[in-house]
Amino acid sequence: MDFKRKDLLGIEDLSKEELLYILDTTKSFREVLERPIKKVPTLRGRTVVNLFFEPSTRTRMSFELAEKRLNADVLNFSVSNSSVSKGETLLDTVKNILAMKVDCFVVRHSVPGTPHFLARSLPVSIINAGDGAHEHPTQALLDIYTMREKKGDVGNLKVTIIGDITHSRVARSNIWGLSKLKAEVRVCGPPTLIPPEIDRMRVKVYYSIEEAIEGVDIIMMLRIQKERQERGFLPSLSEYIELFSLTEERLKLAKEDVLVMHPGPVNRGIEMPARIADGKRSVILDQVTNGVAVRMAILYLLLSKKSEG
Amino acid sequence: MDFKRKDLLGIEDLSKEELLYILDTTKSFREVLERPIKKVPTLRGRTVVNLFFEPSTRTRMSFELAEKRLNADVLNFSVSNSSVSKGETLLDTVKNILAMKVDCFVVRHSVPGTPHFLARSLPVSIINAGDGAHEHPTQALLDIYTMREKKGDVGNLKVTIIGDITHSRVARSNIWGLSKLKAEVRVCGPPTLIPPEIDRMRVKVYYSIEEAIEGVDIIMMLRIQKERQERGFLPSLSEYIELFSLTEERLKLAKEDVLVMHPGPVNRGIEMPARIADGKRSVILDQVTNGVAVRMAILYLLLSKKSEG
Amino acid sequence: MDFKRKDLLGIEDLSKEELLYILDTTKSFREVLERPIKKVPTLRGRTVVNLFFEPSTRTRMSFELAEKRLNADVLNFSVSNSSVSKGETLLDTVKNILAMKVDCFVVRHSVPGTPHFLARSLPVSIINAGDGAHEHPTQALLDIYTMREKKGDVGNLKVTIIGDITHSRVARSNIWGLSKLKAEVRVCGPPTLIPPEIDRMRVKVYYSIEEAIEGVDIIMMLRIQKERQERGFLPSLSEYIELFSLTEERLKLAKEDVLVMHPGPVNRGIEMPARIADGKRSVILDQVTNGVAVRMAILYLLLSKKSEG
Repeated sequence: MDFKRKDLLGIEDLSKEELLYILDTTKSFREVLERPIKKVPTLRGRTVVNLFFEPSTRTRMSFELAEKRLNADVLNFSVSNSSVSKGETLLDTVKNILAMKVDCFVVRHSVPGTPHFLARSLPVSIINAGDGAHEHPTQALLDIYTMREKKGDVGNLKVTIIGDITHSRVARSNIWGLSKLKAEVRVCGPPTLIPPEIDRMRVKVYYSIEEAIEGVDIIMMLRIQKERQERGFLPSLSEYIELFSLTEERLKLAKEDVLVMHPGPVNRGIEMPARIADGKRSVILDQVTNGVAVRMAILYLLLSKKSEG
Repeated sequence: MDFKRKDLLGIEDLSKEELLYILDTTKSFREVLERPIKKVPTLRGRTVVNLFFEPSTRTRMSFELAEKRLNADVLNFSVSNSSVSKGETLLDTVKNILAMKVDCFVVRHSVPGTPHFLARSLPVSIINAGDGAHEHPTQALLDIYTMREKKGDVGNLKVTIIGDITHSRVARSNIWGLSKLKAEVRVCGPPTLIPPEIDRMRVKVYYSIEEAIEGVDIIMMLRIQKERQERGFLPSLSEYIELFSLTEERLKLAKEDVLVMHPGPVNRGIEMPARIADGKRSVILDQVTNGVAVRMAILYLLLSKKSEG
Repeated sequence: MDFKRKDLLGIEDLSKEELLYILDTTKSFREVLERPIKKVPTLRGRTVVNLFFEPSTRTRMSFELAEKRLNADVLNFSVSNSSVSKGETLLDTVKNILAMKVDCFVVRHSVPGTPHFLARSLPVSIINAGDGAHEHPTQALLDIYTMREKKGDVGNLKVTIIGDITHSRVARSNIWGLSKLKAEVRVCGPPTLIPPEIDRMRVKVYYSIEEAIEGVDIIMMLRIQKERQERGFLPSLSEYIELFSLTEERLKLAKEDVLVMHPGPVNRGIEMPARIADGKRSVILDQVTNGVAVRMAILYLLLSKKSEG
């Protein structure tokens, strides 16, 4: 197969073949990470700009490491040190950086569709590193890569996603990806945190965590934003914990070899106790490792073509 | 010719020959920027420190890219994370960094003459990236490079600079450079924003934008700092726009193939409408691209000699 | 000798042989710093993370330069842009970064013992870049390297450390190191700034600066934190200056070829006048240069072994 896209904007618009091709490509970069010298010359002389309009540590570091290990030159641009505050429009800022002859923008922005808008406006590659509550495609790719690495064909899996589905770009991207690969996807959370448009997606909705976990291969807990409480989405944190926290007892309802996932950082004692987060069923740190590999693969697929053009 | 300077402090003290030599050298680095692998090993093992005491996105990024594409090691030092706040003097800070064996400081500071003071005090190269309202030599070089690239010999050109001349290091450096190359230079702005010492410079002063634009090859619009209004330099922003904004109609008074320049970021709707900023006469983004090439050339000319010494 | 440690946590737990081995190794990296191309490929493909939970310019820059000159990939993580503010625990943050397959953490933290805790918990190398008032081992190593470079065998030297001994990790690490190498160590300061546990260390305590300086080879002045005054440790700054500042007159009480040291940044006019800080007896900038070499040596000793493993 030939991967011909300019951008990675979301999982929704990827074909099943493209998804599998990315996952297969990730495997060889995952191997690079086990070498003492974790470096390949793939993107030497290319410049990647990390354009983060929302605070981020993990995702930005993961991208930065992926870029450096591919030998790209890296520029970090975060909103705090930008001239966006000087009243410049986003597009103007980006076009100016582009004029410095850069090859790719990794973009995180609170407004859904921002990376798509930039992708339409610019001739270089755009990677969506999270746009509002819309998509976070590299997170879903690393999640699905992790499931596949541990369990084989995702089409045979039952996956349950638990928490604030409404505000979660992680959930949305995973639902698209898992559905395309024919996994059974369940979502579970308080009714206020399940979006009405969920009916259009190929998932089963549960309001009881026990039912949602029953017999699954994968439990993906979403991070709860404590701020939601103040906005009226959550009745109280303690009630949320009582109803939707992953306990040892609830874990027993899943398959015996169930995997526990979380996009991090875990609120220990809220989404799950430390015992589970650090326990033998947890693959949370594998997700982090695979994140670097997935981002290396995406950068490679989007940018290495152009060198031949 | 042999370029023997240790520092680039301003355009005022460059000879015509030096100016032309820098512009010629820029051309080969401009070509590097068109390659898929935009990287040359010129400054491998050298360390360049970007020392920015004023906030800056574009100029700092442009220098950082120039340095990385020459393979230098780059350290960014901005006032917010400095021990200048611990009461250390500027010279002490810089001497300490120098003791770590670095090769060059790129300095932006609000106090005019700061780079000159450092250049006298230190044995390594200093590049002025803007000192108060005094000089911004790499900006003038990229501006003049752009004019020359598009129009050939600068000595045949009529250039008009419009806006806040008093507070503009960009204007000052351009006036020096363009005069040395025998261009006809006009400046235009409200009387409160034309400095009294302008009489000593080889320029014509206009208070009417129409007269200033009449028959010119290049219109350089300066960015207006809205803060000036509060300090009494500007009567009102709307009056300024009425009198000194570049309109389609005013543009027609210039030569048909006139170029519109701006150091960026443009206040669209103030210095000029978006239509002109993004229009076919605008070379604003070419200026940005050429900025990286000019900075590569300067770093090369100042630092590559020393490797032989 | 074979240097087998995973971490550099403090000077207290190093043997005399290890100390000397580090100092000898530093010498070859000190030579690299005199080359025009100050770069060795030792740590190519390794990733070092600078994890600074206290503001720092000099130490962070010195480590960053050391890392880059060894060709390591560098990630800077400072508390301001971290998700520690999202309520993540330190260990969780670090384990997540570790999962991205990094090789070393350079850690500065206000809580004593933090690097030791991380070293016990993680399989990668930890370098203590300052933990509260406990230790700052690379600073002591660069200090002792400087003494040795200028004076030869440290065992023959009389060294006096003057200032706020209680709150100084620099003093503590130097006392351990100098004692192990059999130097005569004196400490001097106001009684409120001499820690009670000093009796357990092999030093002589002085309350008179004149007596403390009498006949010494090395005077190490500590930086006074002006904040101490408010907390009641210092009666008044002017009284401190009168009693404990290094004057030309006091300097004469030392050996004629005495060296004046300071970890920087110097409060000129407090610990000593500018004349002494910048004078011929001062080796303050040599300390800074040697700091880069010492850090290169430490990174080499801790990390280059692993590539063979």
